[in-house]
Amino acid sequence: MPVDDLVALERRLKRIEDERQIERLIASYGPFVDAGDAEAVAAMWAPEGTYDVEGLSMRSRDDVRAMVLSEQHQKLIGEGCCHFLGPAVVNVDGDSAVAVCESALLVHHGKRFAVFRVGVHYFALDRVESGWEIRTRVARALDGDPSARDLLAAGVSGRAR
Amino acid sequence: MPVDDLVALERRLKRIEDERQIERLIASYGPFVDAGDAEAVAAMWAPEGTYDVEGLSMRSRDDVRAMVLSEQHQKLIGEGCCHFLGPAVVNVDGDSAVAVCESALLVHHGKRFAVFRVGVHYFALDRVESGWEIRTRVARALDGDPSARDLLAAGVSGRAR
Amino acid sequence: MPVDDLVALERRLKRIEDERQIERLIASYGPFVDAGDAEAVAAMWAPEGTYDVEGLSMRSRDDVRAMVLSEQHQKLIGEGCCHFLGPAVVNVDGDSAVAVCESALLVHHGKRFAVFRVGVHYFALDRVESGWEIRTRVARALDGDPSARDLLAAGVSGRAR
Repeated sequence: MPVDDLVALERRLKRIEDERQIERLIASYGPFVDAGDAEAVAAMWAPEGTYDVEGLSMRSRDDVRAMVLSEQHQKLIGEGCCHFLGPAVVNVDGDSAVAVCESALLVHHGKRFAVFRVGVHYFALDRVESGWEIRTRVARALDGDPSARDLLAAGVSGRAR
Repeated sequence: MPVDDLVALERRLKRIEDERQIERLIASYGPFVDAGDAEAVAAMWAPEGTYDVEGLSMRSRDDVRAMVLSEQHQKLIGEGCCHFLGPAVVNVDGDSAVAVCESALLVHHGKRFAVFRVGVHYFALDRVESGWEIRTRVARALDGDPSARDLLAAGVSGRAR
Repeated sequence: MPVDDLVALERRLKRIEDERQIERLIASYGPFVDAGDAEAVAAMWAPEGTYDVEGLSMRSRDDVRAMVLSEQHQKLIGEGCCHFLGPAVVNVDGDSAVAVCESALLVHHGKRFAVFRVGVHYFALDRVESGWEIRTRVARALDGDPSARDLLAAGVSGRAR
């Protein structure tokens, strides 16, 4: 009975588990942030993880938590919003990973819904004991900004940036 | 040769298969309902499964089928619509599961498309011989309604409600 | 030690890997095409693969590459756009597969974003040495056109067309 086969099988399975954990993390962002669960959102990041959106640079879990609790975000979820993230493309390389997805921020305003923002999200993640954590997340609007296109290309190819 | 390892491997694989079956079920909803395939939509539910949307409470497969065949839904797909559901977050616990996703209902009206509704979908599912069935589905618009935020939080955490 | 079990396990794992490779291929389309990476988009197709969108019939990788490099597409990404594809439903049958997803084309125009097009994408794919390639892709707007509904039904059920 070839033990090698079992080891190889376990490796293939582990890769899928890793990718799926990261897919789940990213798919959880919208539900958590739209629910206003500041603790759960913050816990996605490493303690010193960063989140860079145009005009806002967060440098830690505390900064991410503060963003969710901010007047601006609370107003958004109070009126109704959906951080609608698409399926992520995930590239795992040992204990680190790069992932990317596109998104639409849909907002409720005066009985109607509108597309407020459309963007790309680039994630660099690290493996930790409990799973995976975000080390860096960069979001850019897909408004013609060439750097947004660079993020898309880097993310889908698993390149560092 | 440790048989235990093979058993453990099979358990990990089975968990992924379960989650993927549910992900597929949820990802199939939009295509089926936008195609107007009433039988296929109804078959996603348990015979006595429920679907609760604002203003509409369905209590069985027959009710779900009737919704797809209704004048209101037929008009929607006749003009053009897309029940666009995002990636689901799935929590399997033995023979039952809880899943959640966000969605946008995009409608075609007078040569243009618009975002008609943005919402959260909470699913409680049961394992049956043929796979998984919806026992309960609750949808709420993300229009500032606090109960929509509760649904998001419960769904992503796998909590019953 | 039952070798059969290991073989059966490997088969189940392989099926998931196949489906995931196709899911990844489809999830990569938006990032690649919105980044303007014509080579990467073209490489998703078989050399003689086809892509049929209303008013545009591409019959090869070269045609797909030319579409990405066209003035029309370059203008779209220059102003900002997102080919936002939802989670795919994949049906693998040996060395061929059928998949389907819904999508929204979100465009940036004059400081605002709008839903420009909502559609269905039907894919027929073939296994090749390096993974999977698109043999046929058909896209139709969900604007009430009955053929779009047929595509949805065929895709989710894995039927050839």
